[in-house]
Amino acid sequence: MFSNHYLEDLGAVLPIVQAPMANAQGAKLAAAVSAAGGIGSVPGAMLTPEKLREELIQVRNAAGGKPYTVNFFAHANPLATATQKLAWMKVIQPYLTEFDLLETDIPSGGGRNPFDEHALQVVEEIRPPVVSFHFGLPKKKLLDAVKAAGAQIWSSATTVAEAIWLAENGADAVIAQGWEAGGHRGWFLNRDPAGQSGLFALLPNIINSISLPVIAAGGISNAQTVRAALDLGAAGIQAGTAFLLAEESSVSDAYRTALQSEAAGNTVMTNLFSGGYARGISNRFIREAGPVNPDALPFPLNSASSATLRFAAEKRGDYGFSSFWAGQNARLARPGSAAEILQWLAEGIK
Amino acid sequence: MFSNHYLEDLGAVLPIVQAPMANAQGAKLAAAVSAAGGIGSVPGAMLTPEKLREELIQVRNAAGGKPYTVNFFAHANPLATATQKLAWMKVIQPYLTEFDLLETDIPSGGGRNPFDEHALQVVEEIRPPVVSFHFGLPKKKLLDAVKAAGAQIWSSATTVAEAIWLAENGADAVIAQGWEAGGHRGWFLNRDPAGQSGLFALLPNIINSISLPVIAAGGISNAQTVRAALDLGAAGIQAGTAFLLAEESSVSDAYRTALQSEAAGNTVMTNLFSGGYARGISNRFIREAGPVNPDALPFPLNSASSATLRFAAEKRGDYGFSSFWAGQNARLARPGSAAEILQWLAEGIK
Repeated sequence: MFSNHYLEDLGAVLPIVQAPMANAQGAKLAAAVSAAGGIGSVPGAMLTPEKLREELIQVRNAAGGKPYTVNFFAHANPLATATQKLAWMKVIQPYLTEFDLLETDIPSGGGRNPFDEHALQVVEEIRPPVVSFHFGLPKKKLLDAVKAAGAQIWSSATTVAEAIWLAENGADAVIAQGWEAGGHRGWFLNRDPAGQSGLFALLPNIINSISLPVIAAGGISNAQTVRAALDLGAAGIQAGTAFLLAEESSVSDAYRTALQSEAAGNTVMTNLFSGGYARGISNRFIREAGPVNPDALPFPLNSASSATLRFAAEKRGDYGFSSFWAGQNARLARPGSAAEILQWLAEGIK
Repeated sequence: MFSNHYLEDLGAVLPIVQAPMANAQGAKLAAAVSAAGGIGSVPGAMLTPEKLREELIQVRNAAGGKPYTVNFFAHANPLATATQKLAWMKVIQPYLTEFDLLETDIPSGGGRNPFDEHALQVVEEIRPPVVSFHFGLPKKKLLDAVKAAGAQIWSSATTVAEAIWLAENGADAVIAQGWEAGGHRGWFLNRDPAGQSGLFALLPNIINSISLPVIAAGGISNAQTVRAALDLGAAGIQAGTAFLLAEESSVSDAYRTALQSEAAGNTVMTNLFSGGYARGISNRFIREAGPVNPDALPFPLNSASSATLRFAAEKRGDYGFSSFWAGQNARLARPGSAAEILQWLAEGIK
């Protein structure tokens, strides 16, 4: 059996993990959280090896021996057929026209690479205490090398079957990602929305199915929700949205404002921005072309076109095409420093 | 502001409501729960006025002044067009053939009537302390008469918008029905599955949106989940599945066995049995014709044909067409007397 003090055993003062959020935060937030007694996370999936090294060194120094995590993606890179590309182009053509864009303005490639040898080299050099993955786990050879570098391995499960798979394939802890969670679903075996569970059911069912520590994620944005998740048996919690409001996050003013507006009460699961399902605040693009569009290219291939639209729109001060990821309890969060937010969350812990 | 001891103020020893479950329990279970200090519920929607009176008297006597509830439906009775009926017949024709049934074996009518003058008369005579509704609230004239009979009015909300509507239209308390809940969704304004929330998000968001007491429902099946729901700010909890396993419930042996099998870990939201969305244990009918079939007749009109199939199948000892309603945390529940189950749930309360 696992210790229910798994995160404390890793050296954390509080069993609270700041969720890695690519494009919304970097070393600054992770360092502040780890220094304050939580577990900060560096989103590594979209960084060059050089930038990754720099960020991890910054967090390692700030953490002073306390734990932190670095997160990578473990998806397979798909190909889109000409027919698929054509179908998606048809969906976005009116928007390209509206923003004076040409199809050739869209860069090729998906922009999100799975964990590879280059990232592994940095992990072997810096030796982070925890490496977490999203969308499953990397191939065994890569995973074994990460373990050999001394890292604990975490990954997200959205169903009991995924949790069991992770436990059988090398994970040291599992993050139970409830349907409430903002950002990308980490699903990798069970991609049917109808089979997804809220945290209230997912968490106890996963805990009863595997013997690894389970970290609760999804909708945990204040002290009450932290306490409820721990009551349901979690070894700790992972909060994303709550830390988006930290002074140390790198979200835009528009994103920050949206998170604190009534709009944050209306999040939806959409596949428009990357091709993968992710929860964010509803906007014009989602209302008109989504929330789920069957013609979206497979993850992560939709990222290139949606990012092109987004940047063109934002240049005009228009945030109707921005991916403002947020969980279903965004309205429970409040702004402050990372250390303050950590303390507010921890009020839920006896 | 409301008192967080709303249910205790009504006279309950424990803030635990046994959910009304039509066809699965009657006065016997409700009486046992109320006598033991919880709040038992009589599902009144499918009873004749005579039977309703009899059941309510039985519970009132057993409760000895302690609170109990009676539940009715508040849906609009729809009509199905000939085209709709034809489309649904096409779906079930192979099953009718398999069970040697003719279309004329299916009774006309939906079998579930909304709250009406006849039920009101019984309410006015018996004066139950709480009348709860599913699928919204009845017309104002009926509702006012129920209030005049001294009953507290409860109804279920599956979204914040529904909770606000209930608060503005005469409810005294709102049941926040998380996506985890077994049985029928109580939705009446927002019927889009994509907009539904797990309890972990629904409960705090509703609590923050209205000033009525909020009772948590959905996935509450053991002490841990009771405690988590109260931590999220609920004035009390309503548990259904946990009480299905009570000796005093009237579920069949096959249903009882299914609830305690691995199969109970796989519940789905289906519209096959009544036309309305409801969560139950997956079976052959759901796998083959559902879980959601666009040709199902509008609630409650699909009940007649599905019940006909069910009875014919059960006569052969085949439970592949039975609606075994269960919530997503069915696996956390365990069998016992109603009083024992109540005590197990209450272990979650400090």
